[in-house]
Order: sequence, then C-alpha cells, then structure tokens
Amino acid sequence: MAKYAPGVFEKTPAPPEDYVRVRADDLRNLVKNVFVKLGVPEEDAWVTADNLVEADLRGIESHGVQRLKRYVNGLKAGSVKAKPNIRIVREGASYAVIDGDMGLGQAVSARAIKLAVEKARKADIAMVVVRNSNHYGIAGYWSSKIMEQDMIGVSMTNSRPLVAYTGTLKRIVGTNPISIAAPTLEPPPFILDMATSVVPSGKIEVYRRKGKKIPRGWAIGPDGRITEDPEVALKEGAILPLGGLGEVLGGHKGSGLSFMVDLLSGVLSGAAWGPHVAYTVANQPPNVGHFFMAINIEAFMPLNEFKKRLTDYVKTIKSIEKHPDFDYIWIPGEKSWMTKETRLRKGVPVYKKVYQEIKDICGEVGVEFNLKPL
Amino acid sequence: MAKYAPGVFEKTPAPPEDYVRVRADDLRNLVKNVFVKLGVPEEDAWVTADNLVEADLRGIESHGVQRLKRYVNGLKAGSVKAKPNIRIVREGASYAVIDGDMGLGQAVSARAIKLAVEKARKADIAMVVVRNSNHYGIAGYWSSKIMEQDMIGVSMTNSRPLVAYTGTLKRIVGTNPISIAAPTLEPPPFILDMATSVVPSGKIEVYRRKGKKIPRGWAIGPDGRITEDPEVALKEGAILPLGGLGEVLGGHKGSGLSFMVDLLSGVLSGAAWGPHVAYTVANQPPNVGHFFMAINIEAFMPLNEFKKRLTDYVKTIKSIEKHPDFDYIWIPGEKSWMTKETRLRKGVPVYKKVYQEIKDICGEVGVEFNLKPL
Repeated sequence: MAKYAPGVFEKTPAPPEDYVRVRADDLRNLVKNVFVKLGVPEEDAWVTADNLVEADLRGIESHGVQRLKRYVNGLKAGSVKAKPNIRIVREGASYAVIDGDMGLGQAVSARAIKLAVEKARKADIAMVVVRNSNHYGIAGYWSSKIMEQDMIGVSMTNSRPLVAYTGTLKRIVGTNPISIAAPTLEPPPFILDMATSVVPSGKIEVYRRKGKKIPRGWAIGPDGRITEDPEVALKEGAILPLGGLGEVLGGHKGSGLSFMVDLLSGVLSGAAWGPHVAYTVANQPPNVGHFFMAINIEAFMPLNEFKKRLTDYVKTIKSIEKHPDFDYIWIPGEKSWMTKETRLRKGVPVYKKVYQEIKDICGEVGVEFNLKPL
Repeated sequence: MAKYAPGVFEKTPAPPEDYVRVRADDLRNLVKNVFVKLGVPEEDAWVTADNLVEADLRGIESHGVQRLKRYVNGLKAGSVKAKPNIRIVREGASYAVIDGDMGLGQAVSARAIKLAVEKARKADIAMVVVRNSNHYGIAGYWSSKIMEQDMIGVSMTNSRPLVAYTGTLKRIVGTNPISIAAPTLEPPPFILDMATSVVPSGKIEVYRRKGKKIPRGWAIGPDGRITEDPEVALKEGAILPLGGLGEVLGGHKGSGLSFMVDLLSGVLSGAAWGPHVAYTVANQPPNVGHFFMAINIEAFMPLNEFKKRLTDYVKTIKSIEKHPDFDYIWIPGEKSWMTKETRLRKGVPVYKKVYQEIKDICGEVGVEFNLKPL
C-alpha cells in the first residue's frame, strides 16, 4: 500500500501508452450530446453522462465511459427507452415504488433520488424502490447525491448474474452492490461503495485486458475449481461471493449480503431478481431493481454534531497503530475521493481503445467528436 | 457439507460427553428467575431469557445461556441497571432515538422493536436507533421479532472492539453484526444474521475450548501475522474483517461494512463507537448502540405476493446445479431454523461447564435450580 501525497493519487494506474487524458467537462459534454442525439431528454442525458464520468473520475473505470457503447446499443435495440414514462406506482409519506419503464438506469434513479430526498425532508426517513430500470452506474453516485443534501444516503441495486451463491456451481446472482454515504466535517466524506462479490466484474476485465492472471480466490471455473484465468472467470465460470468459496472464510456471508440486496432491490420492488435480471442488450427487458434510502440526520442529532462524531471516528481509526504491511489506513471512499481530485486537475484517463470507441459512436450517431487529449 | 434430514439437523455438534440436554422452556424459565431475583422486572427478565435461549436453540451457543454469567456480573457491578429508565429522546412518525439508561440490551431492544413496529404500522417504514444500551444477544432475534409482524426487519449493533480494521494492527472495531429477516410462504423464513468479521468471537471460543487450531484467515496475532492459535486471537491479537487480511480478497469491504454498522448504531444514535464501546463489566458504561428498522411489506405489494416472490427466489437458488463440494445449498437462517426445530424436540444442549455455572449462579442469587437433564 503506497503512501499518497494529496492531489497526486490515483487508485488505478493509467500509463500514457494506454491512455489519453481529457477534461472531465469535455468528456461529460460529449457523452451527454450522444444521448441527446439518441433522443434522450437533456436532463436525463446530463445525469447519465455525469454518472459515467464520475465513475472515471473516482477510478472506477469499469463503470465509466467504457460503458457508453453498451448504453448506446441498448437505446438502439429498444431494450432501453430514450423517453420512458417513469411513474410512481405506490407511495406514502416515507416511501415510494417507482416503475422506470425501461429507461436509462440513471434517468430513473435521478427521479427516485429526488423523490427520496423530498420525502425525507418532510418525513425524516424515506425509502424508494425501483422496478423496470436498467444499469444505474456506480452505486456510490446515488448515495453521494443524497449525502450532498446533508442526509445519510443508501443505494443498492441488483444486476445480471455473474456470481455463484455459496454451494452453486454456476453464476446465479449479480455483484449486487451496497453503498452508504455520510457527511463529515472535512473531506473526504464517508462513501462505502462495494460489490457484495469478492471483486466487481470490472476488476477482472482489467486483468483480462492486461493479459494477467487474477488472484486465487476471486473466481471459479465451470468445474467449480478456483481459476486464475480472467477469461474463464468472465465467460464460463463465476465470480465468488465476498468471503470466497465455501463457508470457512465467510462465503455464505457474501452470498447472504447479495441476497439481501436483491430482496430489497428486486423482490420488494417488483423487479426481476437473481438469474432473471437481464443484460442491457438482451431479448428480454433487463428489469433491474434498485433500492434507495435517505435519512435526515437533523432528526437524530444536530448535523454538525453528527459530522464531528463521524470525523472523530475517522481520525481515531487513522491514528491507531498500523499493520506492518500498511503505511496508510484508508476510509471508505477516500481512494476514490483522492483520485477524483487528481483527475479533475490532471484530466480523466480514457483507455485508447475506449477513446476510439467513443469517436466511432459519435460518427455513427452524428455527433461532432471534439474531445481533445490534454 | 452434510445432507440433513428435516428435524435431525444441528448446525453445531453437541456430543453427550460434553453436553446435557434440557427443555427450552425449563431453561428459559430458570434464566428468567435469575434475572427477576436480581431485580429485573418480569417482562424484561423474560425477553432477556428468551433471547439467550433462542440463541442456544438456533445453534449460536456463543450468544446463549453461557453469557448469563456476564449479564449477572454486569447487574451486580451496576454497569447494567436492573430497572433502567428507558426513554424516547427524540421521535417523529417514522423514527425514534431511545436512551437505554444502561439497561439490559434485551430489555432496551424489546422496547425499541415494539416502537419500530408500531410506527411502521402507521408510517410504513420506521427506524429506531438506541444509545446507552448493553449487549443485545443475537441480532437475528430482533429482526425475527419484526418479521413475525409480517414486516421486513433489520437489526444491527456495535460491540466492543475485537476486530482489526484493514490496515490496523490492533483490534479497534466490534464484530458489528447485521441481520435482516423477511417472511416466506413456507418455513424457513429468510433470516440473515452475520458478524461483519470473518467469524464471530464465539466461534473462536469454541476452538479454544476444544484445544483446536483455528483456520488460517480468521485472526492475526499481535505481530500482524495470521495466527492459528485461538487463545492468541482472543487475547492479544485481533479477528479479521470479512474478506480477510489486506485488500486482495476484500478485507476493506468487511471493514467498510463494520464501519457502516457502527455509523448507524453508534454514531447516529449518540452511543459509543469503535474502540469506545466497553465490555458489559467495565469501569466505564458499555454504552452500546443499536439500529432497528421495520418495513411494512403491504405498503409495497400485497404480502402474499412478496412471500411468494421470496419463496420462488429460494426455490430457484436451491434448484440450481450444485458445486461438486456441496450436496446442499443453504439459505440464510435455514441451518439455525432446522437446529431450532431439532432442539425443541431433542432438548437444548448445555455445555456441562455452563450447566454447572448456571447452578452456581442460582446458588449465589438464591434461585431454586430445577433444571433437569433430559
């Protein structure tokens, strides 16, 4: 674990031979233009672009603009609707069920978040579940949006099956992430954003791209044995739940957490669940489900008191004696925060192949490609 | 993983040379009498006894009647108050903050759960956080109590530091469990009840008692290296977070989950947090914090539809091709459920040393020891 100097830390490496750097604003604007050209309303196009670029800024490239192609394909194929009729199916003072009508996951989630925050302002806590949605990007984007309103934000989603459940041979559940965000007195805020599998699929994709073996314990092959081959893991095998294979190191806990996320995002919302959640471009509607919660901190204690307590907690953890293998103790979201600060200044690295892909997409849909490398 | 025949499964072995079996009702009644004798009101004594015996029934002996001595010592030392003034500090339609006034964690939690369910009946979702409490037993007892009201129940608590946070050498956070329970059409219901550490401390205690080595990956010694010695793990070392040592297999995720539990149970409630949470018998008030949530399923969809959806999910997972190392696929809470069914018939196993301990306690406090082995 390397020490970092504030402002020059990036959680994922971006060597100049593989990446170009571009301004975040330019990238966001271009991606937004692509969505607008495909018929997506301005506001929805903006939040989707912002969500993708935010992932790149935070060093979660797997959920960044490299997914643009998938979204564009979904819009073209009709499995993602550009102008969905997003509607509230049920609601009360402190909850709502939203039907996303197969819209972009980000367009639907933005609507859900807005509603959750409005309700929590009046009812102190609010829960919004969503059905008939699509991939919503990084979970932490949505919890952060709630946190920016001085609330505790919770965000979960189910996703297409890539992960084995303890005891199954095949992939049956998604990487089903959990995110919770809470404000502190000084940056970085607390932003936990984690797949309930050992790793998200994007991390394995990075190893595949580099032709590197994956660590033992991340995935199994079709025979159920641990595989070090990223291609096997992604194509025929399965990612393992947090805690790994079997129960000795807690694989059943990762499986249980994944089930919990799906129970709240999929079962309770009326969305698809488990193996029924489909890919963005598929023969069936993806019908992804989300879960959001907003907790109005002021209801529980004065906001600044909460922030101070959380900040003290962070300082306490950071001040304790370090393990000999570590010279830095990280708080959830801190690496991403530092990465974002760095990339806002140095530019967002875009993998050269992705840069070309975006250029091609612009050509196809008829958007001027004006993305200048820095 | 052994196959089980319904009704004769126990998740933890109880060989007759080490254990006696007693009727659950007898055990509950005796334990209740001990609390009453120590000044605890009848109702509070009952729920505390029920909570401890339920842990034994579910095969979580570490949280069962072997903790009676600790509770009795707390009551005698005054760090646990027999007749606390449990009060609502703040509340709204869908939330409350409770001050437990150093009462038994179970007495305080029973009050909190009752309030959460009442509020959720009217407001559809309710969240109750608790400060100034004590050890509340198994997390799953409380989520189950909410579930019995046809709601989704969530229960979390912080606990005294036993676990290293990723990058720290020493124990700094608790095993901070998460539990969520939801009803199904047919038993067993879904009851996830898990420490956010690789294992709860009780599991290591079992290895110590048997003089067995613990699996590599559960704990580190005072030098930060993996230890197989349960004594070292419990005394000088630290239990590892779910995901293990370092970040490769997701230790930072377990640490993040533990932090999340403490953020909601400790920071938001005004209780102690992290290393400040004390043992039941200590020089400072334990000031344990809890978090409870009740979700009224009927607000989201007809209850039976939810139960059917969840039951279908369970059936789907169980019907998928099994990993060659498994001949059974378990659902969260299923092992405990089967264990309880078995023990309600065969009797609750009580470790002989614990049986004697309870006998001694009865002698000390002046309660007739009428616990007949079956």
